Amino acid sequence: MRWSEIETVPCPVAQAMAVIGDSWTVLILRDALRGATKFDEFQTATRASRATLSERLSHLVEHGVMEKVQYEAHPPRHEYRLTPRGRALQPVLMMLSHWSETHLPVKTRSTGRRHTTCGHKFSPMVTCSECGEAVTPETVSYDRTRIDAKG
Amino acid sequence: MRWSEIETVPCPVAQAMAVIGDSWTVLILRDALRGATKFDEFQTATRASRATLSERLSHLVEHGVMEKVQYEAHPPRHEYRLTPRGRALQPVLMMLSHWSETHLPVKTRSTGRRHTTCGHKFSPMVTCSECGEAVTPETVSYDRTRIDAKG
Repeated sequence: MRWSEIETVPCPVAQAMAVIGDSWTVLILRDALRGATKFDEFQTATRASRATLSERLSHLVEHGVMEKVQYEAHPPRHEYRLTPRGRALQPVLMMLSHWSETHLPVKTRSTGRRHTTCGHKFSPMVTCSECGEAVTPETVSYDRTRIDAKG
Repeated sequence: MRWSEIETVPCPVAQAMAVIGDSWTVLILRDALRGATKFDEFQTATRASRATLSERLSHLVEHGVMEKVQYEAHPPRHEYRLTPRGRALQPVLMMLSHWSETHLPVKTRSTGRRHTTCGHKFSPMVTCSECGEAVTPETVSYDRTRIDAKG
């Protein structure tokens, strides 16, 4: 199978990768989640070429992750804003960043992540929506898979 | 900047993408986290070509995410096992899968994710290590970035 056929695979991970499975795209999302909206802001932060950046932003707009909005009429200027679908990727990127900080043997810029609810620097933890306890690889099981219709 | 230079960028998200920023790699990790260890198991599940799969597995071994272990001497047979670094990617893939299930408008195979601690089907939630409350995009702030030495 070629990667271009991946959209035919009814697996949520494969479907997600069809939308955000590109490294430049993930860097764009990182910056958008921290407030970047302008093409030039994304270019400075990601250091992608203009052609690469333009292609990736269009892909995200096409998949409903970002929207392109005109914010000035004369001259016409646009910015890229995360949609609710895009903003919902924040937990994914936060866990990815946390993994990198805690498991990769390289010096990285600290994200200095702070929880404004309590005011503390924190590590993101995954917990269960039903009992509130920690979810670990050892405490998750998977029922046999099946095709579900979703809205 | 080309993507091959990304390892020079001291950002945890960029560093993570240098290791797992490839769609086939993410599918391999998905299957490894559900117990796949054999080359043929990965090939059946991901439908990647043997060359692609071999290259991606080597990359994961090189970065300490998986290890190649001989499990039979005559004839020599090997399998690929997740290291602690690889197993620690489980929350990332779980949040990615959850995002796909809840935010993409496509039919996917349900993961039927169950928390064995309480026995319920659940949604993974991100909470704060310090206060235990929910972490949302609106309740995270970032201090100014700096370079941190890490072990």
